[in-house]
Amino acid sequence: MSDTAQFKKLALIGIGLIGSSIARGVRQKGLAEEIVCSARTHDTRRVAMELGVVDHAYEHSADAVKGADLVIFCTPVGTYGKIAEEIAPHLEKGALISDVGSVKKTVVDSIEPHIPEGVDFVAAHPVAGTEKSGPAAGFAELFQSRWCILTPSAKSRDEAVEKLSDFWAALGSNVETMDPKHHDLVLAITSHVPHLIAYNIVGTADDLEEVTQSEVIKYSAGGFRDFTRIAASDPTMWRDVFLHNKDAVLEMLGRFTEDLSALQRAIRWDDGDTLFQMFSRTRAIRRQIIDAGQETAETDFGRAPKGEGE
Amino acid sequence: MSDTAQFKKLALIGIGLIGSSIARGVRQKGLAEEIVCSARTHDTRRVAMELGVVDHAYEHSADAVKGADLVIFCTPVGTYGKIAEEIAPHLEKGALISDVGSVKKTVVDSIEPHIPEGVDFVAAHPVAGTEKSGPAAGFAELFQSRWCILTPSAKSRDEAVEKLSDFWAALGSNVETMDPKHHDLVLAITSHVPHLIAYNIVGTADDLEEVTQSEVIKYSAGGFRDFTRIAASDPTMWRDVFLHNKDAVLEMLGRFTEDLSALQRAIRWDDGDTLFQMFSRTRAIRRQIIDAGQETAETDFGRAPKGEGE
Repeated sequence: MSDTAQFKKLALIGIGLIGSSIARGVRQKGLAEEIVCSARTHDTRRVAMELGVVDHAYEHSADAVKGADLVIFCTPVGTYGKIAEEIAPHLEKGALISDVGSVKKTVVDSIEPHIPEGVDFVAAHPVAGTEKSGPAAGFAELFQSRWCILTPSAKSRDEAVEKLSDFWAALGSNVETMDPKHHDLVLAITSHVPHLIAYNIVGTADDLEEVTQSEVIKYSAGGFRDFTRIAASDPTMWRDVFLHNKDAVLEMLGRFTEDLSALQRAIRWDDGDTLFQMFSRTRAIRRQIIDAGQETAETDFGRAPKGEGE
Repeated sequence: MSDTAQFKKLALIGIGLIGSSIARGVRQKGLAEEIVCSARTHDTRRVAMELGVVDHAYEHSADAVKGADLVIFCTPVGTYGKIAEEIAPHLEKGALISDVGSVKKTVVDSIEPHIPEGVDFVAAHPVAGTEKSGPAAGFAELFQSRWCILTPSAKSRDEAVEKLSDFWAALGSNVETMDPKHHDLVLAITSHVPHLIAYNIVGTADDLEEVTQSEVIKYSAGGFRDFTRIAASDPTMWRDVFLHNKDAVLEMLGRFTEDLSALQRAIRWDDGDTLFQMFSRTRAIRRQIIDAGQETAETDFGRAPKGEGE
């Protein structure tokens, strides 16, 4: 990046984990001269200001976007349509509008109709996050070496796509472009269905009457605890993800349950060969994820103490 | 523990991740004067000797157990019955026989009939492990602050249970006793079903034709990569676990799929309230697992770089 800021004023609509991580990264790299946000609750605005991640925090998004040349939606995707409608009359000519939503087809459909002439819209999804929520949970390095997927649509001029791509690259991300529908299919299997089944098994365990909750907690090191991390993710955000990526999630979930039925049948009929074969081929995938730099190679995510033989 | 070794000779049947971790821990704490193992393959015996974790490595378990006052089965549970039959004539009077299997009811049923008069048998399950396999993957601290569940049965005298309990406590574990059948039910939900669904979703992702494997790998940071860690666990061990804990796994799996169908239906019918409610109550469980010392509180398992605000 050059020495001069890429943007004059960045307006973040919502300032949770992702919004505040963007704010920190932008400040650290000097990508915008001014950073403002909007947040509905007084408490969130207060925390954002106290953390010093924004210069101003507004209650209404229409106030935040005034004079901004980059506007990024960082609220749950279910809110996008209404917010787009509200801010539309206040958008600056030449401004670039984007988002960070985990689904893209419905996001494009709900924002794009409101984008006025002379304003660019490029939907984006930084594939990064943690199980924590809120402005205090953010950190500048969140996007480092993670992928950010841009899904250009009718109102995305090439220059705008390039500008947003530079922005995310400056935050440390690898940038890729994709068709919105294809994005939703890819993320359904790499993110949405994994979250759904993690939430689900934690719920199942919580409901048991033969096994106490204290037993579930005590013996969670056997595998269960990994799932609880994902199942601790923000409920509002994830509710909206499932409602807005319904088709792809239901499709992938259908395949998942079909495959699970086959494993269930193999267990019932003592078919060890089918189980062994299945359990053998899944190892290779982890190796590739580690090699691709998307995962730590450390045993047990580094939770295991270092051993003498390692 | 006292200054004198608790056991004269420890014989480990099998020397993979768990066996070699026991050997390292026992050596570090001085719990046995001599440590030997048996392993079918020459290569495993060579590695175990080279690592210096055992004093002798035998091909046949019958040779390893001679003169041992503590014998621990550390092979996949499907091998236990045959090994018990083979070693029975060679067991020392007064010896204590145990195991580390992840299921307990069938383990007791397959070992106990072979235990001769004057020999004690106490089944045990250290709830600890990593996704790595083999003798080189072991480390002495693996059992530190983890639970070890003893499931005493007909041939477990109280003194023997106490002796084994002291042994595991000396390796750093918290020890609990439980009925074998109840153990299998608890572990079905805290470990076995989580492993099955992790293996399953990684398999489902591997089979897709609309989404390439390279896309699955690139965008795995959205949640999928956590599942691949569990799905990288030892295939032989896990095949045996499912075949030997069939009833409890099928019971828990039935509940899991029932609950998943309800979530699937909520998505299909845009029932955001059901989703939100479900996603909200699962957060509390993770908090409790962290408070119980069974998990790290670090964001993203500590994979996320430290942020300015943390």
